[in-house]
Amino acid sequence: MKAVRVHEYHRDPQIDDIAQPKLSGPLDVIVKVGGAGVCRTDLHILEGQWAEAMAPELPYVIGHENAGWVHEVGDGVTNVAPGDTVILHPQPSCGLCQACRAGNDMHCSGGFFPGLSNNDGGMAEYMRTTARACVKLDPTTQPAEVAALADAGITAYHAVRKALPLLYPGTTAVVQGAGGLGHIGIQCLAAMTATRIVVVDRKSEALALAEDLGADETVLADGDHVEAVKDLTGGVGATVVFDFVAEQGAEMDGWNMTAPDGSHYVIGYGGQLSIPTLDVISTERNVVGNIVGTYNDLAELMVLAQAGKVTLHTQQYPLDQAVDALHDLDAGKVRGRAILVPEGA
Amino acid sequence: MKAVRVHEYHRDPQIDDIAQPKLSGPLDVIVKVGGAGVCRTDLHILEGQWAEAMAPELPYVIGHENAGWVHEVGDGVTNVAPGDTVILHPQPSCGLCQACRAGNDMHCSGGFFPGLSNNDGGMAEYMRTTARACVKLDPTTQPAEVAALADAGITAYHAVRKALPLLYPGTTAVVQGAGGLGHIGIQCLAAMTATRIVVVDRKSEALALAEDLGADETVLADGDHVEAVKDLTGGVGATVVFDFVAEQGAEMDGWNMTAPDGSHYVIGYGGQLSIPTLDVISTERNVVGNIVGTYNDLAELMVLAQAGKVTLHTQQYPLDQAVDALHDLDAGKVRGRAILVPEGA
Amino acid sequence: MKAVRVHEYHRDPQIDDIAQPKLSGPLDVIVKVGGAGVCRTDLHILEGQWAEAMAPELPYVIGHENAGWVHEVGDGVTNVAPGDTVILHPQPSCGLCQACRAGNDMHCSGGFFPGLSNNDGGMAEYMRTTARACVKLDPTTQPAEVAALADAGITAYHAVRKALPLLYPGTTAVVQGAGGLGHIGIQCLAAMTATRIVVVDRKSEALALAEDLGADETVLADGDHVEAVKDLTGGVGATVVFDFVAEQGAEMDGWNMTAPDGSHYVIGYGGQLSIPTLDVISTERNVVGNIVGTYNDLAELMVLAQAGKVTLHTQQYPLDQAVDALHDLDAGKVRGRAILVPEGA
Amino acid sequence: MKAVRVHEYHRDPQIDDIAQPKLSGPLDVIVKVGGAGVCRTDLHILEGQWAEAMAPELPYVIGHENAGWVHEVGDGVTNVAPGDTVILHPQPSCGLCQACRAGNDMHCSGGFFPGLSNNDGGMAEYMRTTARACVKLDPTTQPAEVAALADAGITAYHAVRKALPLLYPGTTAVVQGAGGLGHIGIQCLAAMTATRIVVVDRKSEALALAEDLGADETVLADGDHVEAVKDLTGGVGATVVFDFVAEQGAEMDGWNMTAPDGSHYVIGYGGQLSIPTLDVISTERNVVGNIVGTYNDLAELMVLAQAGKVTLHTQQYPLDQAVDALHDLDAGKVRGRAILVPEGA
Repeated sequence: MKAVRVHEYHRDPQIDDIAQPKLSGPLDVIVKVGGAGVCRTDLHILEGQWAEAMAPELPYVIGHENAGWVHEVGDGVTNVAPGDTVILHPQPSCGLCQACRAGNDMHCSGGFFPGLSNNDGGMAEYMRTTARACVKLDPTTQPAEVAALADAGITAYHAVRKALPLLYPGTTAVVQGAGGLGHIGIQCLAAMTATRIVVVDRKSEALALAEDLGADETVLADGDHVEAVKDLTGGVGATVVFDFVAEQGAEMDGWNMTAPDGSHYVIGYGGQLSIPTLDVISTERNVVGNIVGTYNDLAELMVLAQAGKVTLHTQQYPLDQAVDALHDLDAGKVRGRAILVPEGA
Repeated sequence: MKAVRVHEYHRDPQIDDIAQPKLSGPLDVIVKVGGAGVCRTDLHILEGQWAEAMAPELPYVIGHENAGWVHEVGDGVTNVAPGDTVILHPQPSCGLCQACRAGNDMHCSGGFFPGLSNNDGGMAEYMRTTARACVKLDPTTQPAEVAALADAGITAYHAVRKALPLLYPGTTAVVQGAGGLGHIGIQCLAAMTATRIVVVDRKSEALALAEDLGADETVLADGDHVEAVKDLTGGVGATVVFDFVAEQGAEMDGWNMTAPDGSHYVIGYGGQLSIPTLDVISTERNVVGNIVGTYNDLAELMVLAQAGKVTLHTQQYPLDQAVDALHDLDAGKVRGRAILVPEGA
Repeated sequence: MKAVRVHEYHRDPQIDDIAQPKLSGPLDVIVKVGGAGVCRTDLHILEGQWAEAMAPELPYVIGHENAGWVHEVGDGVTNVAPGDTVILHPQPSCGLCQACRAGNDMHCSGGFFPGLSNNDGGMAEYMRTTARACVKLDPTTQPAEVAALADAGITAYHAVRKALPLLYPGTTAVVQGAGGLGHIGIQCLAAMTATRIVVVDRKSEALALAEDLGADETVLADGDHVEAVKDLTGGVGATVVFDFVAEQGAEMDGWNMTAPDGSHYVIGYGGQLSIPTLDVISTERNVVGNIVGTYNDLAELMVLAQAGKVTLHTQQYPLDQAVDALHDLDAGKVRGRAILVPEGA
Repeated sequence: MKAVRVHEYHRDPQIDDIAQPKLSGPLDVIVKVGGAGVCRTDLHILEGQWAEAMAPELPYVIGHENAGWVHEVGDGVTNVAPGDTVILHPQPSCGLCQACRAGNDMHCSGGFFPGLSNNDGGMAEYMRTTARACVKLDPTTQPAEVAALADAGITAYHAVRKALPLLYPGTTAVVQGAGGLGHIGIQCLAAMTATRIVVVDRKSEALALAEDLGADETVLADGDHVEAVKDLTGGVGATVVFDFVAEQGAEMDGWNMTAPDGSHYVIGYGGQLSIPTLDVISTERNVVGNIVGTYNDLAELMVLAQAGKVTLHTQQYPLDQAVDALHDLDAGKVRGRAILVPEGA
C-alpha cells in the first residue's frame, strides 16, 4: 500500500509502497483510511521537534487525524466490525489503568499516539489502531469530511466542555485565535452555552468567519486588544479565556484578559507564562491546562457534527500529494483543514 | 474442583465436583479463589427471587464477593499476571460502551454478574472473570479477609462517595441500618468527611458498634426515631440520609428524616416509597438511587482498607460448609460477614 | 391606591382603594408596579388551598410575579435607586443565614413570599419588597413584558440550570408539559445545551409551539407516550425528564420514562409518586425536587430574555379587570400568561 | 479606648487613646474585641507594602483577625445581638452583588477589609464591622483562642475545601510549608479527606509537628525535595500541591511536584511562576489561585474547631504590648500565632 513516511528530519517525507499493517493483538483493528488530516504538528515532526520526546524509529508513517472504515478486527473486539464507518481517537488507551477507568483516557498510563509516537499513523491506505480508539459513525458519513475532528476538533471540544459549569448566562468567554481549533471552539460554545462569545484574532477575515459561527463580539489583536476586552467586560476581563494561541505574547494577553475569579484555559503552546504568585492569589485566577480530548469527547463532538452544529472547512488532496499539502499548510495557503484522501476511498 | 451449585430453587445448594473453568476469550482471567462472601442475595437466589430477572441456567455456581490469586490469563490481559493477589469487582464490564468510557462501569451495556446472572460465581476453588474485574492487591493481603468488600463494601462506599460534596462541616448524615453495609458506610463517612454521623438502628448492640466505628450520635429505631433525628437537627432533619434498610417502613422514615434541600440515598430495598409531588417540590428534596460501586470505587475502598480505615468483621467457613454458612446467615447467627474459604487457600 | 385583595376564600377578590405601602426597615424598597402576572397559584389561594400553610391575615393583596420601577428605598439599600427598572424575586431573603450565604436563597430561614404569605403582593399600584429581591434591568425594558419571568420563569430556569451537567451532546431531555413553565424550559434547554429535546403534551397545539421553540421531537400524550419515549431512546428512556405536570398520572409517566442512571426532575405537583425501592436501586435513578429559582437564577434568566433567547407570550389586562383575568385563566382562555397592568404604568 | 495605630510607614505603630467607633449604617455592628491576631501582613503594612494597593489614610488602626463580643447593632441587623460571642470575617461584604448572591463573597464588588483598607481594624478595645461579617459562636468560646482562624484559618480552609473533589483515596496531597497556614491546612485535610498527606518544610521541628497533626509522610526541603516527592508518588508527583510558601523558589518546586492532570494550589505569595505553555498543555496541569475564604468557610471551620479537629497554638500578649508582639513575630520568636488581648477581655 501507499504510505507517507518520514525518513529523515528536515526533509520532505516520501510516498512509499509498504506492506499493509496486520493484527498483532486481540484488541487490534485495521482501518481502511478514508481521510487523514494534515496538522501543524506534522510540520513540527518534520522539523524534528518531537524527535526527542517521542523517539519514533525512522522511517515511519505520520498522520494522527484519521477516519475510515473498519477492515479487520482482533478476536477480542466487540464494538466494531468490518465495514463500519469510524473516526479514530488519536490515542489508543489501555482501558485498565485508573485514568482509563475514570473516563480520563488521555492520561492512560499505557497509551500511544500513532503517527507521533513509535507507531505508524494514518497517511496511508490502511492503519492499525485498537478497539478503544474506534468511534462508530452513521454509515453515510464521509470520513474525509470529519477526519479533522479526531484531533483538532476534540482538543477544542475538550476545553470548552471542561469550562461549561463556569459559562452561565451573563458571563463572557474570550476565544483567542480563531484558526483551526478556535473556529471549532466558537461553534462548541455557541451550541452548548449562552455565554457571550468574544473572539480575538490578528486577522480581520478570521473575525468575519467568527461572526458567522456565533461570535457576539470580535476584537482585532492590534496591541490594544487586552484593553478592548476589559472595555467589553466592565473593566474586569473575561470569565474564561480560551487561549488557542499561547505563544508570541498571546499567553500573557490571555492571562491579562482573565477576570478575577476567572480562568485562563491554555490550549495552544509555544510561549511562556510569567506570573507573580501575588497576582494569582490576590485575584484568585486560575491557569487551566488542556490536552487532547477523551474518547467520549470525540463521540459527543460527532453528535454535534452530525446535527450540523459544528462544521469544518476542508480542502482535500489525494494521498499522493501529501507533500504539496504539507507545503501549502506551511505557506499558509490552506483554507480550513487539509485532508489527504487515499485513492479509492 | 469443588463448587457450590444451585440445582433447584427452594432447596439447599450442593457441593459438586466439576471441571475447572477455562479461558474462553483474550481478556479472561482464571482466579484461584481465596475467599467468597456469603450474602443475603445468595439466600434470595435460593428462594428464586432472581430467577426471572437473571434467568441463569441451573445448575450454576453462586458467590459474587470474591478475592483470590490470578491463576491464568488470556492473551489480551495486561494488568494482572499469574500469582497476583486480587479482589474481584462483581460485574465484569466491556470497557467499550459510553458508560464504561465515562468511568461509570456499573451501567455497562454489556456487563454480567457471575454468581447471579448466567455465569458461575466464586463459591468454588476457581472461577472465571475478566481483566476489567481484577483489582491488584498488596501481595501480603489475605483474600478471605477482604472478599466482602467486593460487593457489600463497594455498595456502601459508592453511596458515601457520591454524597461527599454535600457533607461539609456543619451538616448531618444519618445512617439508617448499621448492619453489613451500614457499618462500612459509617467508617467511610468517618474517614472521608467531617459531617456529624447519626446512626439509627433497631438493635442497641448495632448502635454500640456504630459508636466504636465513628458515630457521633445514635438513635434507637423504636418508633420515635424520626422525631429523634429531627430533634438532633434543629427540627429540620438530615442533609443526607443513607438508607441501608429501605423496607418495612424504613423507606418512609428515611424520606421523613431528610431535611429540606436534602437527599435520601436509597441503598437497601424491599419497601415502597409513596411521596406526594407537592412534598418533593415544596422542600426541594431528592431521592437518590445507589447501585453497586464502580471498579475505581473498589480500588479506592481497598486503599482505605489497607490503611486500616475500614475494617470488616468476618467469620470464616471451609468451602465444604457452605450450606451451614447459608443457614447461619438465614438464622441471624453470623457476626459480621460469613466467608467461604476453599481448602488450601 | 388600587389593589386586588382577597377578603374571603371561595369568593372573587375585590379592587380596593388602600393606602400606599411605606418603608418599614432600612432594606425595604417600594416599587411602582408595572406588571403583575396572574398564576394558577392565585386561583389556589382563592380556593383556600394555601390558607393553612401560609395563614395570611385577610384581607390582603395577592400577586407574586412582579416587575416595575423603584419608587423609594430604605437607608441601607445600595443596589437600586428610585427610577430604576426592576423585576422582583418573589421571595425576599435575609442575606445572613447559611443558605443565603451559599447562594441558595430559596432555602433562606427568614424568607417570606409577598402575595402568598402574610405580606401584600403586587396586584396593586405599589408594593413593598426588599433590596435583596430587586434585579435591576435595562431601563428600556417594559415591566409588563417580563413580569412572568419572576416566578414561572425562574422555576423552569432553575430546574434546567441544575440539570446542565447531565445534558451533554448525545443525551435526551424530556419536557413533560409544554404550558406556561414548560415552554420556558424548552427555550432554556435550547439556549444552554445541545441535548436532544423531546416534548410530551396532551395538546397538539402545544406540541406545535414546542417545535417552534426548539423541540427536536414531540410526542402526543395519548396513553402510549411512555413507550414512545422509550422508542426514541433505544429502549432506555431519557437522561433527564423535566416533569412540569406531576399530577394525574404524569408523575409516574415521568418516572417510567427516565433511563437507568437518569433523573426525574419534579417541578409540577399534585400527584403522588409510588416507587418500589428495588426500582430505585437496581436502575440507580433519581427523583430531584425543584423549587422556585434563586436571585441569581432570575438575573441569569433576564440575560437570556434580553438577548431574545427566551420569550414569553403575554395577554395584558388593566389592573381593574383582575377578576376577569382570573376567570379567564380558570376557564383556560388565556393564551400565554395574563399580566395585570396598573393605570399609568 | 486604646488602639494600635500606624502613623507612618517604616516606624512602629503607637498605642493611642481614641474615641470608640460608632454605628454609621443600619447593618453596622460594634464589637468589643476579645482577641486580635498578629499577622505577617501587619509587618508588611508597616513596611508600606500595601500603601499603594489599599491607600489607607494614616493614622489608622490595624488588625484583621478578630473575635469578641457584640456591643451594639444597627437597626437592620437580625443575625446577632449585643452580648453574642462572635468571630469576624475579615472582609464585610455587600450581600447584593452577583458574587455575594452566589456565596462567593470574597469577590464582592463592594467589600472592604478593616485593618488593611481604609477602615479601622481590631487591635483596639472596640471595632466596627457589619452584620455580614459576624459568625456567632458558642457563648463559652474564648475569642482570643480562635481569633487567628478569622484570616489565616479560613485561607487554609478555603484552599483545602476547593480541592476536596480531587482528593479521593489513593491520591496524594503535598502541603508545602507547615507554618501558620500550613499547619491548619494539614488538620483540615486530615479531618475531611482520606488522601495521603505529604508535608514539605525546611525545618525539621515543623515536620515533627506536622506528623502530630496528621501528615502521613514528611520531606525536608533540602534541595532534593522535588525528587523526594516524586519518589513517594511513583515518579509522577502529587495530585494537589498546596503551596503555602510560593516564594524563594518554592513556587516552582510546587509546580514541579504536581503530577500530570494535577493542580498546584497557590496560597502563599512573593515569588514568580515561569512556566512554558507546552508544559501546561502536555501534562494538563493547573495553577489554582486561592484568596481568603468565604463567610461560610469561616462558619464551617468553626465547626471543625469546636469539634477539636482543628486546633491552634497561640501566644497571648496584652494589647499594650502590641509592638513587642510585632517585633517578636518579625524576629521569628512567636510559637504559633501571637494574639493581642485588650485589658478586661
